[in-house]
Amino acid sequence: MTRVLVDVLQGKPSPHTPIWLMRQAGRYLPEYRKLRMQVGGFLELCKTPEMAAEVTLQPLRRFDLDAAIVFSDILVIPDALGLDLYFAEGEGPNFNNPIRDEYDVNNLLDIDVQDSLQYVFDTLKLVRAELSPEKTLIGFSGSPFTLACYMLEGKSSRNYEIVKHWLYQKPEVLDILLTKLSDIITKYLSAQIIAGADVVQIFDSWGGILTPDAYVKYSFKYLQLIVDQLKMLHPNTPVICFTKGCAPYLDLYNELNCSAIGLDWTVSLSQARKQVTNKVLQGNLDPVILSAITSHSKLRNEIARIVNDYKDSNNGSLDGWVFNLGHGILPSANIDNVEYLVNTVHEITSR
Amino acid sequence: MTRVLVDVLQGKPSPHTPIWLMRQAGRYLPEYRKLRMQVGGFLELCKTPEMAAEVTLQPLRRFDLDAAIVFSDILVIPDALGLDLYFAEGEGPNFNNPIRDEYDVNNLLDIDVQDSLQYVFDTLKLVRAELSPEKTLIGFSGSPFTLACYMLEGKSSRNYEIVKHWLYQKPEVLDILLTKLSDIITKYLSAQIIAGADVVQIFDSWGGILTPDAYVKYSFKYLQLIVDQLKMLHPNTPVICFTKGCAPYLDLYNELNCSAIGLDWTVSLSQARKQVTNKVLQGNLDPVILSAITSHSKLRNEIARIVNDYKDSNNGSLDGWVFNLGHGILPSANIDNVEYLVNTVHEITSR
Repeated sequence: MTRVLVDVLQGKPSPHTPIWLMRQAGRYLPEYRKLRMQVGGFLELCKTPEMAAEVTLQPLRRFDLDAAIVFSDILVIPDALGLDLYFAEGEGPNFNNPIRDEYDVNNLLDIDVQDSLQYVFDTLKLVRAELSPEKTLIGFSGSPFTLACYMLEGKSSRNYEIVKHWLYQKPEVLDILLTKLSDIITKYLSAQIIAGADVVQIFDSWGGILTPDAYVKYSFKYLQLIVDQLKMLHPNTPVICFTKGCAPYLDLYNELNCSAIGLDWTVSLSQARKQVTNKVLQGNLDPVILSAITSHSKLRNEIARIVNDYKDSNNGSLDGWVFNLGHGILPSANIDNVEYLVNTVHEITSR
Repeated sequence: MTRVLVDVLQGKPSPHTPIWLMRQAGRYLPEYRKLRMQVGGFLELCKTPEMAAEVTLQPLRRFDLDAAIVFSDILVIPDALGLDLYFAEGEGPNFNNPIRDEYDVNNLLDIDVQDSLQYVFDTLKLVRAELSPEKTLIGFSGSPFTLACYMLEGKSSRNYEIVKHWLYQKPEVLDILLTKLSDIITKYLSAQIIAGADVVQIFDSWGGILTPDAYVKYSFKYLQLIVDQLKMLHPNTPVICFTKGCAPYLDLYNELNCSAIGLDWTVSLSQARKQVTNKVLQGNLDPVILSAITSHSKLRNEIARIVNDYKDSNNGSLDGWVFNLGHGILPSANIDNVEYLVNTVHEITSR
């Protein structure tokens, strides 16, 4: 059985450039909104494997995407650790019990990942059973630094003053937290692979808020820890690392032992190809384009621009690249644009 | 009369590394908050030269900063163009008349910059009369793209869907707007120089939200237009260009005809020095550090780290660098930290 996305991530040739979209199961789909209304809460949806599996498969029923990504949230880990995640209407995520001090760090629940996050593994199994065999199944987690940001700030933050206070004033306690999270994330991703994920992606959504010095010490170091462990446990499973704000770190990513680097839309694929010499690249259409463009021909121009930019920088070959957005798809994305995007990428990258 | 900041920006030697802070006149200062309360609105403060001059000078009375930057707002230009700027309590800026369509672009007021923004020039004259002669006076403007963002979105935006809609669907109308703004900004900065500004800075706060392709076409191109014009009009006045999200453009900045590049905190000075070979650099302490760090010794470590990073990448010399934050100072900045920062930079960079 050959899966195009897995093949490309393993450096093999492929009949076309594979495409999937971050947050492809979500609010821009009317069938998602309908199901979400029926269930009630977002978290309840994540925690109900039958529903989560259905939502995971929804975009695959509409579009010829090359992969499904399990419907879940990066904050299920902090939730399992006792922080009690909730989503207030119209707001981002919140915790009833954010971490306040060293005592809270040392008293995080000692969880059995297999047990506490069973619902995610069950969802993966249900999806794999229904998913066409040629489609790739992706599992994911937040990065240690990104999870720590949410756990310390208690919610989304503008300036991350609390995290940065810890970083400069209590680096050794932050290290305890990040090390603990790295261990849990490794186990979590490993269990997702065992449950059927062909590929896993680590979302480092907030690494980009750091200075380069702090990024290496508090984000990159723990990413490396996780990918090194996963490489030993599952040598054939590709790991993709995505950092929002990746531009300053393209050279550094050559040292990261993962298979692919996910790029946001602020760097060109050609620049990234020049700097990241030993990995597959993934990205990076500006997600706003799917909301802002209202003509197929203009959307096609943007797709072609990206395709040619990559090709020109890679000796005329499209190998070593996975098409994606540069960030999650927006709720305002036009569904017709999404369909046109998926079909056009397949068409113009056909070998 | 020698002014350390002007000297450094002109490539001359200096007794120490000059330091000023973006938004140094502002909410973290109790004397600012007091005056602001007395006056009422923020915009009223900007439009009253005696008050604006007083606020401009406040940080210089406390700290040994090398420059004053005129107290104003980048949105005074759209306000003068008839968009009617206001600040709702607890919110960011808003316009009563944002631009909605091509008609609005073509019907922007045809302003006489000298007349419409007289209050800014009056403020500069008042400040210069009071400012110590060895201190530099800085004028500023928003970049054309950044002003267009606000003018089209009507306020701060999360994803800039409206701007990006124009960018892909109506590029020729956006070009008319950006060209008009470039002309006005050039006149505005020129008039600030005539009124006493020794240096001007262009804030490209939102250029970093674009793809590299769009950045060149819709932000960089117009920055170049302005700096080229200013160079002809005022060949000896240094121009600093600051883009938030500058990391992808360091190589490109070699082509920009300004004197200095302002850096945000996500790139290292050494990386920037390696890539930007023909300009002074300005930056780039993470502004959150002034709120998050509570010990002088840790703050000193961070300052020393930046100083050494620059020095090591510049053949052991501290020439060609202006110390600043990587973004505006936060209202939560600790005043004692600010004082320690200014004094420490002078002390450890003393030649």
